[in-house]
Amino acid sequence: MSSFQLLCREGHARRGVFQTAHGTVQTPVFMNVATQGAIKGGLSSRDLQDAGCQIALCNTYHLHLRPGDELIAELGGLHSFMNWKGPILTDSGGFQIFSLAKLRKIREDGVIFNSHIDGRLLRMEPEDSIRIQANLGSDIAMAFDECVRIPAERSYVGASAERTYHWLIRSKETWQKLKQEEHAVNPGQMLFGINQGAVFHDIRRNHMKRIADLDLPGYAIGGLAVGETHQEMYDTIEVVEEWMPADRPRYLMGVGTPGNILESVSRGIDFFDCVMPARNGRHGHLFTKSGILNIKNERYARDEDPIDPACSCPVCRNYSRAYLRHLFKAQEMLGMRLAVFHNLCFYNTLMLEIRENLEAGTFENYRRMYSEKLDTRI
Amino acid sequence: MSSFQLLCREGHARRGVFQTAHGTVQTPVFMNVATQGAIKGGLSSRDLQDAGCQIALCNTYHLHLRPGDELIAELGGLHSFMNWKGPILTDSGGFQIFSLAKLRKIREDGVIFNSHIDGRLLRMEPEDSIRIQANLGSDIAMAFDECVRIPAERSYVGASAERTYHWLIRSKETWQKLKQEEHAVNPGQMLFGINQGAVFHDIRRNHMKRIADLDLPGYAIGGLAVGETHQEMYDTIEVVEEWMPADRPRYLMGVGTPGNILESVSRGIDFFDCVMPARNGRHGHLFTKSGILNIKNERYARDEDPIDPACSCPVCRNYSRAYLRHLFKAQEMLGMRLAVFHNLCFYNTLMLEIRENLEAGTFENYRRMYSEKLDTRI
Repeated sequence: MSSFQLLCREGHARRGVFQTAHGTVQTPVFMNVATQGAIKGGLSSRDLQDAGCQIALCNTYHLHLRPGDELIAELGGLHSFMNWKGPILTDSGGFQIFSLAKLRKIREDGVIFNSHIDGRLLRMEPEDSIRIQANLGSDIAMAFDECVRIPAERSYVGASAERTYHWLIRSKETWQKLKQEEHAVNPGQMLFGINQGAVFHDIRRNHMKRIADLDLPGYAIGGLAVGETHQEMYDTIEVVEEWMPADRPRYLMGVGTPGNILESVSRGIDFFDCVMPARNGRHGHLFTKSGILNIKNERYARDEDPIDPACSCPVCRNYSRAYLRHLFKAQEMLGMRLAVFHNLCFYNTLMLEIRENLEAGTFENYRRMYSEKLDTRI
Repeated sequence: MSSFQLLCREGHARRGVFQTAHGTVQTPVFMNVATQGAIKGGLSSRDLQDAGCQIALCNTYHLHLRPGDELIAELGGLHSFMNWKGPILTDSGGFQIFSLAKLRKIREDGVIFNSHIDGRLLRMEPEDSIRIQANLGSDIAMAFDECVRIPAERSYVGASAERTYHWLIRSKETWQKLKQEEHAVNPGQMLFGINQGAVFHDIRRNHMKRIADLDLPGYAIGGLAVGETHQEMYDTIEVVEEWMPADRPRYLMGVGTPGNILESVSRGIDFFDCVMPARNGRHGHLFTKSGILNIKNERYARDEDPIDPACSCPVCRNYSRAYLRHLFKAQEMLGMRLAVFHNLCFYNTLMLEIRENLEAGTFENYRRMYSEKLDTRI
C-alpha cells in the first residue's frame, strides 16, 4: 500500500496526502531547506512551525561532514538533534558533491571527492549515502545519483543515467536492509528514486520507465534547474510525468520560483524544495503577491506598511518596511531573520492556496493569475 | 510625587517599582541592550518578551545617525518603530561619542565629532541630545554628559564634572520644554541625571550632592566600568550612594557581570545595563549558575544536556549543547541567536531571583552564594 493518497485532480495537477513516520504532509508542498540542521537566517524549529512549514529538508553531505551522521544517530537522529518533530527529507549528498566539493573521480561504484571544509579525501558510494541517511533518521531518504550539469553531451548523459540506475538498485537494497536493523533510527524511513537524463527526452523517459519498475515509495525528477531554460524544464517534466506512477508522490528537486512551482504543479508535481526564499531573504529580496521587493531601497525608508499588506505572517503583522530597511542598513541580524521568515511564510502560503484552489477546482484560474507575475528571478 | 516606590530594603539593597508611560518596571532590573533598535543576535521584540525583558535600552548616537531620530518620530517613535510596547530608556549618546566616534573637540557648550559611519562632522550639545531623545520618545532620557576614561588626571576630571553639571542643567531645561510641546512623541518621558567624577571620591560626592538638588526623576552613576578595578567601582558606588535621593531610582551605567550586579544591588543600585550577555552569547560564551560555558568546546560535541540544567528558558527546554555547538561550528546564525537568547534569560532570571530574595529578606545569603562564582570575565 502506498503512503500517498490522491484527494483530487485538476488536469495534471494533484492534491494529495502523504503519510510519514513523523506526521502527514499535505501536497503540493514546499519543503523548507535546513541544510545543516537549521534554516539559514537564524530561524529556529519553533519559527518553522510558525511559518507553516510542513516538512524540512536537510543535507546529507553537510551533516555527514559536520557534525557527523554517527554523532547525530547517537543523539537519537535529526528530529531529536534539531528538535523538529515534523517530517524530514534528506537529499543524497550527490548534488553537493557535484557542485560544492572538489570532485576527484566518478567511478562505476561511486565518487571520490575532497571535503569543501578541510580538503579531506572522501569516497561516497550509494551504500554510504543510504547508511548516512539511515543514521540521520530522516523520513524520506533520496537515492544516490549523479547530477549532470546542463548543457552536457548526449553520450555522457546516457552513460550517467545508466550509472544512476545501477546506483538506485544498490540504494534500494541498502535501504531495505538498514531499516530492518534492530537499532534503526527511523524504521519508517522511505526511499525516493531520482530520474535523470538532462534534457534528452528519450533518456529521461527510458530512465523513468525503468526506475518506476522498482516500486519505490516516491519518485523525484533531479538534474533540472541547473542551467536549462524554464521551457526546457517544463517540457522535460511533461515527458517524464507520463511515466511516473500516479499513486506515488513526485518531487521536482531544487525548484524554484513561485512561478516555476505553479507551472510544475499544473504538470503533476507534488513536492518542491529551493534555497530561494532563504537566500533572497538574506539579501533583502522579499516575496509579495505583486513580485519581489528589495527592502534596502531608499523608497521604503519611511514606509509604515508591512512588506505585503496582503500577507498575514507574523513579520507583516508586527513590523514595517521602514523598520526592516533600517535593520538591513544597520546590518542587524534581525533583518535577515525577519526577511527569511516572511519569505518562507510566502512560499508555504502559496502552497496552501494551491491546495485550496485544487480542492475548489479553481487551480487553473489561480495559476493563470499568478504564474507569470511570480516568475521572478533576482 | 516620584514615579518610584520602594517596597522593601535589606541593608542598602532595595526592592522597588518604577512607573513609566509604557508600563511598570520591577527593580532591581537589568535593561536589555537594543542599540540600534534591535538586540544583536537576531532577537525580535517578541523574543524580548519571551526572555522576560522588562525594559529595553536604545542608543541615541546610533539611532540619530541611522535611520535618524526625525524619521523615527515621524513613524510614531521608537516603541512603534521597533514594535516594543514596554518601557525604553535611551542613553544620551555621550558614551558613544567619547568611545566610538572620532572626537574632534570638547567645548563648554558641547562636542564636535566625526560620525563612525561616514565621517560626517557633527556637533552635539545637551539640547541636541535631549531633542533627539524626545524624537525617539523613550520613557527615560539620559542627560548629556562627558564620560572620562580611567585613569584620568584629577584636574581634568574636576573640570569635566563641572561641565557635565552645566550640561545637566541645560538638559533639564530642554527636557521640560520639549515634553510639553503639543506633538511630543512621549509626553510622559522622564529625565535621569548622571553622576561623574571618575574614582575621585570628593569630586563624585560633590557632584552627586549638586545634581540631587535638581530634583530629577532618577539618577545614574556614569563613568564606571571603563578601566577601574571592581573594588574601585564598588567603593565609588558607596561614596555616591549616600547622597543619592532614596526615593528615586539609581542606575549604574554599563555594568556588568552577574557578580558586579549582585555587589552593586547590595550597595543600593536599582537599574543596570550591559552588552555582556549579548556579546558573550555571540561568541558562544554562555552564562550558567556555575559560571561561563564555552559552547564551542569539543567536550560538548555529544552532550545531550541543555546549556544549564537549572535553567527553564526556551533554549534550555528545547535544544542540547551538542546542537548549539554544531550551530556555532557550522556558523549558523541560529547558534548566536539561541546563545544570546539564553544569556538574556539568564540575566533577567538573575534579577527576578534578586527581587524574590529581597522580598523574602534572604538577599544577603543569595549574594554570598553567587557573587564570587558569577564574577566572570571572558
